[in-house]
Amino acid sequence: MPKIMVLLAEGFEESEAIIPIDVWRRAGFEVVTMALHDQLVVSSHRIPVMADVSFDPEAEFDVLFLPGGGVGTENLRNDPRVIDLVIRAQEGHKWLTAICAAPTVLGSAGVLHNKWVTSHPSVKDSEALQGALYREDPVVIDGKLITSRGVGTALTFAYAVAEKFGVDVNALRKAMVVS
Amino acid sequence: MPKIMVLLAEGFEESEAIIPIDVWRRAGFEVVTMALHDQLVVSSHRIPVMADVSFDPEAEFDVLFLPGGGVGTENLRNDPRVIDLVIRAQEGHKWLTAICAAPTVLGSAGVLHNKWVTSHPSVKDSEALQGALYREDPVVIDGKLITSRGVGTALTFAYAVAEKFGVDVNALRKAMVVS
Repeated sequence: MPKIMVLLAEGFEESEAIIPIDVWRRAGFEVVTMALHDQLVVSSHRIPVMADVSFDPEAEFDVLFLPGGGVGTENLRNDPRVIDLVIRAQEGHKWLTAICAAPTVLGSAGVLHNKWVTSHPSVKDSEALQGALYREDPVVIDGKLITSRGVGTALTFAYAVAEKFGVDVNALRKAMVVS
Repeated sequence: MPKIMVLLAEGFEESEAIIPIDVWRRAGFEVVTMALHDQLVVSSHRIPVMADVSFDPEAEFDVLFLPGGGVGTENLRNDPRVIDLVIRAQEGHKWLTAICAAPTVLGSAGVLHNKWVTSHPSVKDSEALQGALYREDPVVIDGKLITSRGVGTALTFAYAVAEKFGVDVNALRKAMVVS
């Protein structure tokens, strides 16, 4: 089962982070939440969540996941340690996943050139996504890069990632009453 | 704008709690999370969330919301203070809302007799729901009682509650990329 590293920055969009963590832990994946600074991280709508670990630039994982949120994404993109982590993940052929505005963090790290992506509609034309190939699907998969659009697509995104690791998501969908 | 009280018990289903809080705070509602015991409450899939306040039996609110989760629901139902709070809320003509297995807490408090409800399918036939009228719709509204079924119906549920207080949810749906 894969190890998924979820980066939590102040202002992260809580549903976009929590829904995938919920799905992936139900699927039996090892999911670790990593804070950029203090381990108690306050989400975009003022929910304080305790991350599992503090930031570790040497952290090992199979999948890196960046939740969105306007402020959360800015905090990720403005942190050189996050940019370094994304570049290192790409060089190590890890999976890169992001939702909402967070695909722009991947763009700022320079790993989206000629890659198919999606994002929150509000950042579609942002400078960070120039050079990427854009689709408006709920989830866009290009090799080991998986991007999605917002809270409303977070479940679909989480299942798509789970399926990439061989999980039959039908039982999860049923338990979670997803039609 | 209404004041919504969200009860957080150990083992609460995180997505079922977080999605509605997210929606309602975006809508401008006053949302308060109240822990049964320690303010740092660990969710069903091991996400520690810091509640806004500790349990206060005299807490005032317009809407009481009970998230589900198997263990979370048991912890709510086995706490006499929660049962008292539900009974007091009903007597005060407050809104009662619950999702997943948590409608059984309302049933245990004796406030569901001859009321239309739904719940997670796994507790449909539970003793606590005997005497209630059951539907399998994603959200069931009977007066000031609103119930729902699980993670997959949490967004629809949250919007339904918001609409009851006059919110035009179309802008929320668009911002959250809900199709």
